[in-house]
Parts: sequence; structure tokens; C-alpha cells
Amino acid sequence: MTESMENQQILLAARPNGMPTEETFEFREVPIADPKAGEVLVRTLYLSVDPYMRGRMSDAKSYVEPFQVNEVIPGGIVGEVVQSESDHLKVGDKVIGMLGWQKYNTVEATTVRQVDETIAPLSAYLSVLGMTGLTAYFGLLDIGQPKAGETVVVSGAAGAVGMVVGQIAKIKGARVVGIAGSEKKTTFLEQELGFDATINYKTTDNMEQALDEACPNGVDVYFDNVGGPISDAVMNRLNDFARIPVCGAISSYNKTDDDLGPRIQPKLIKSHAMIKGFVVQDYADRFKEGTQDLGKWLSEGRIKYEETIVEGFDNVPQAFLGLFKGENLGKQLVKVSEPSE
Amino acid sequence: MTESMENQQILLAARPNGMPTEETFEFREVPIADPKAGEVLVRTLYLSVDPYMRGRMSDAKSYVEPFQVNEVIPGGIVGEVVQSESDHLKVGDKVIGMLGWQKYNTVEATTVRQVDETIAPLSAYLSVLGMTGLTAYFGLLDIGQPKAGETVVVSGAAGAVGMVVGQIAKIKGARVVGIAGSEKKTTFLEQELGFDATINYKTTDNMEQALDEACPNGVDVYFDNVGGPISDAVMNRLNDFARIPVCGAISSYNKTDDDLGPRIQPKLIKSHAMIKGFVVQDYADRFKEGTQDLGKWLSEGRIKYEETIVEGFDNVPQAFLGLFKGENLGKQLVKVSEPSE
Repeated sequence: MTESMENQQILLAARPNGMPTEETFEFREVPIADPKAGEVLVRTLYLSVDPYMRGRMSDAKSYVEPFQVNEVIPGGIVGEVVQSESDHLKVGDKVIGMLGWQKYNTVEATTVRQVDETIAPLSAYLSVLGMTGLTAYFGLLDIGQPKAGETVVVSGAAGAVGMVVGQIAKIKGARVVGIAGSEKKTTFLEQELGFDATINYKTTDNMEQALDEACPNGVDVYFDNVGGPISDAVMNRLNDFARIPVCGAISSYNKTDDDLGPRIQPKLIKSHAMIKGFVVQDYADRFKEGTQDLGKWLSEGRIKYEETIVEGFDNVPQAFLGLFKGENLGKQLVKVSEPSE
Repeated sequence: MTESMENQQILLAARPNGMPTEETFEFREVPIADPKAGEVLVRTLYLSVDPYMRGRMSDAKSYVEPFQVNEVIPGGIVGEVVQSESDHLKVGDKVIGMLGWQKYNTVEATTVRQVDETIAPLSAYLSVLGMTGLTAYFGLLDIGQPKAGETVVVSGAAGAVGMVVGQIAKIKGARVVGIAGSEKKTTFLEQELGFDATINYKTTDNMEQALDEACPNGVDVYFDNVGGPISDAVMNRLNDFARIPVCGAISSYNKTDDDLGPRIQPKLIKSHAMIKGFVVQDYADRFKEGTQDLGKWLSEGRIKYEETIVEGFDNVPQAFLGLFKGENLGKQLVKVSEPSE
């Protein structure tokens, strides 16, 4: 079936210096590779673009290997098996995996995992039921450990991770304050997701005062997705024994000058506070537990999720770049093709 | 016995702006208060001056109440009971407590604890067997959790806490790197205490390179006593899952401008690292465990300690100010009077 078909790929053309641009990416057409014994050919349905990928475009030491220049960019993909040389998967099966940013991936069947679209829509496996939801779950519950009545502040609150963080914190009985970058986002957080208070950091002229008003009892847990001046301000309001999971620092990912701010060590001493960086893979041996809880809360309607879906493989670079302009509400995905059934 | 005796006190004369000076302190002579029922009169033998006290001289929120202007400064003192109206203590007993910076304290007998000078010299109860040793013990073992073969870096290594930290880390089988501010100190750490490597930050013209040479396998635990640029450099060398107990930030205590440095949050994510501020009182319910281990290691000769002792109550302010110039090797104490026996 693949004889006449061309595959389209997106490669890392050059490492970006500062904000990535269209020139960071290169589209290439290649023949589709026929699956060999044990392999499957997977057609991409949904493709995930994520802020952490910016880090992998640089050459610096990071928590994972950097992307290679002139190679296909790897990322989270939900797809459909369209040809199978494996006993494990059959044509029509829907799968998820870390695959290449391309329309078709030819891979060992064991490198993907089948998903069940009767439990949740396919796209959810890239958002609330995927790495995004698990990132929120483990960062908040293992590091943040919110208790009933405590105040939890989350930055990047209208992003894919932040939204889930806030809702889990509500389930645990905390007062939840979300920081986001538009009125559309803050309204959504308060009215649709039940956040107790929100701050629009783009229109607030005094972040310190806005935090004082939103957090009259100080801050017990700060789930940090953004870093920079927003985090500086939160760090001045920590309660004793505060916990700070550091999930992302999107404000710094594209900086080319030094990322300078007030040193936080004296604040940590004053508040006996703990701050820890993490990535979701740190909890790989507990994914089942997290997925079960998230699935349960989802089915009970206690967690809602939101996705911003761009259509078309050609628009993958724009969808990625939009993350750094805060264009997405919830998880940013690209819909590449329709399922066959 | 006290009729004809005058007491001498040191009060906080004014809150310092930046580095404290002689004007921060006021000496005052008052009559000694006779002990009432349940009280004892304690003559000061050794008085402890500590960097954390600088924080309490300011009015800002801190982990303990600020000192009050025009009141006697409280601090750690070892003294001798010279008059007793309590069944718990008798004349001649040696005690330790948080008392006032004065030659004589009249206090409830229950606010001091008797010490046994047959186990260790009296001064040791203000250093290795006191809050100083316990600070090192709990910060390193509870937060730092060094494992055999790991690299432990300690700043302020020739200070009272740092010295004990390094020796406990050696007991746990770690490679220990100490950062200190004179060749006398670094030589002492290597030759007397068995540190594996040291860095004299005052003469090193390239801290980054010095750290690379001293820590060829990166940094697993960083016990931070100093903050500032030294800590900035260490934070660039963290291994995955590094642990950083933050005990002090002496480089910032007297700063009047902003204490700016590279934001550490992105580094914490890259290394999945954890950093936690603490004070020894966080472990109050485990002091017995810590004191037992420290006493055992001391008696086995596995921990040595060093004290810098200034003579005379008049020299208390200078001894305190000397802490910020790094004049002390090990614990800085003031010997105020001789025991009567």
C-alpha cells in the first residue's frame, strides 16, 4: 500500500539562538519505509507540541539528549496502524508513542502502546491521560503535597499541565490561585474549572499586590511552570515549610542573555521551604497509579480538560511557536489526519 | 552574694543597615537580679556568636522573631550556677541555654540544661555537641543524604557547621570538597580533617574551573552555608537528583542592594535537583539521636572540632563582627569567665 505514498517529515534544521523561527524547521519528503517483521506502519492522527522540546533543541546539558540537527524531531504522537508485520497490533489499532514528527512512522510494534478510544477521545492520551496529566499529578502530589485548606499557586495555569494541577489541588481541598496571561484564560479557570482566584500577569501592574490579594494566607505550594519575575514574586510569599515543584521555566527557554533574578536561597531558609525540579519520567514506575486516578477523576467529571487543536501537518511549527506566545488554552495539539473509521 | 555585684549586658542599640558596627551594640551595667523560688543565677563562662543572629537584628520576616531594640541580645551560653533557689540545680553545676548576652543570667532552672564536662569540654556544648553540630548532622543527613562514592561540596567549610558537615560526609564514604577563604583554612581541612579537596575562593581566579578540577564527577550534595556567587558556580555542576541543604547565606546577610544572581530554577529542572532551607529547630524532636551519634563519633576520634576563642565580655561585638570577615576557624566563642573549680 505504501508504494505510491510519500512521507513528510519535520527535521531540526538548525539549533535556534533565542526564540525558534520557521528556519529552525525543515520539511522533507521521503518514501515511506515498509515495515519489516515485528514492525508496524503508523499514520499520525494527533501530534503533541510541548514547551520542554525547546530545551532539546539546544546543545546544552539537559535532562534528556538534545535533538540532532538534520534528524526528524521526536515527539508524542497518537496514530493508527495502517500496516502490521507484528502479532501484537493489527490494522486499525490506535496507538501512542514517542515517534517522529512525520506523517508516517515505521517502528517496532513494541515501541508503541495501544489506546482505547472507548475510554477517552484519542487526543486525551496526549493531554490529560498522557504525560501532561501525569506531570501535573506527580509534581503536585509527590513534591507539592497540598493539604486541605492550604493555598496552592500555579503559574502557566491555563496551560496543559497547569489546568490539571489546579483541579487536582481543588480535589485535595486546597485554595487554588492560577496565574495566566489573558482574560479569556483567567475567566475560563475561574468559571469552568473552579479556581478560587486568578491573576492576569499581563494586565496586572503590581504582581506583588495582586498576589497578596489572591493569597491572603500566603503560599503553601507553588507549582512553577514559568520561572522569571512571576516566580520571583511568589517566592516572597512562602509560608513556613512551603513546597515548590519546578516543572518548567518557559520564560527563560528562549533567553539569550543571563536569566538574572533575586537569589532565592535566603527565602528558602526563612521559610524552611523546599524546591525541586522534576520531569515526569522520574515517576515512570508509578504511571499506572497516576493514570488510574486521573481516569477516575475524569470519568467522575472532577477533572475537565481543554485542548487547542490546530489542523494540518504543515502547521506543526506554528503550533510549537505559539506555545511561547501563550496562544494555547490547555493542551496544544496538531491534528494531522482523520482516523479511518 | 550578689548585693555588691554589678551585671554587664549587651543590648541591641539599633538595627544595622548593612554590616553591623560597634554602634549596633550597647553595653549597660545593671544590678544582678536575685533568683526567686525555682530560679538560678548563672555566671556566663562561654558565649556563642553565630551568623544567623544577623538575621534577627533586622525587622524582616525570618524564621524566628527579630531581636528587640534596647533589649538584651539572646544567644547560646554555657555557664555555672552560682546561686540556686531550685531543687533541680545546685551551685557549681554547669548548664547550657539560650540566655542573654550578659555576665549573669537569672532564669527559671527549667530553661537551662545541665551539661557533663567529663564527656566533653564545656565549650563543645556550644559547638560540635550543640546546635552547630546538630545543624550539620540533620542538614547533611536528612536533606543531603550523601551516599558512598558521591561528591559532597560544602561552602563555609572551615566554619563551625561546615567542618562537621565535611567530616560526617567522610564517615558516610563520600568524596568531600570544602570551599573556604584562606590557605590556613584549606590546609587545615585537608591535613587535619581529611577533606579530599579544597578551594580557596579568595585566591581562585576561576571558581568554575576550580570546581571542575575538585569535582571531576560533578556534585551530588551541596551543603550551602554562604549563598552568592560561590553557590551560583556550584549550581552549574549538579548531578542528576542532587540534594542541596541551605543552611546559611552569609554572603547576603549584610547586603543592602538586591542580591541578584542567575535564576536556579532551570538548573533544578535539568538536574531533577532538590534544594531545601532549614534551621536546626526543625529537628527538635530528633536532637537526642543526633547528639548520640555526634558524641559517639567524637569519642571514636572520627570527628574533630576546632574553636576560635576570644577572651573577655568586652570583646563579644568584635567576635560577632569577625564572623563576617571569616576570621574564625571552626566555632567562634567568647570566654567570659573561668569556672570556679
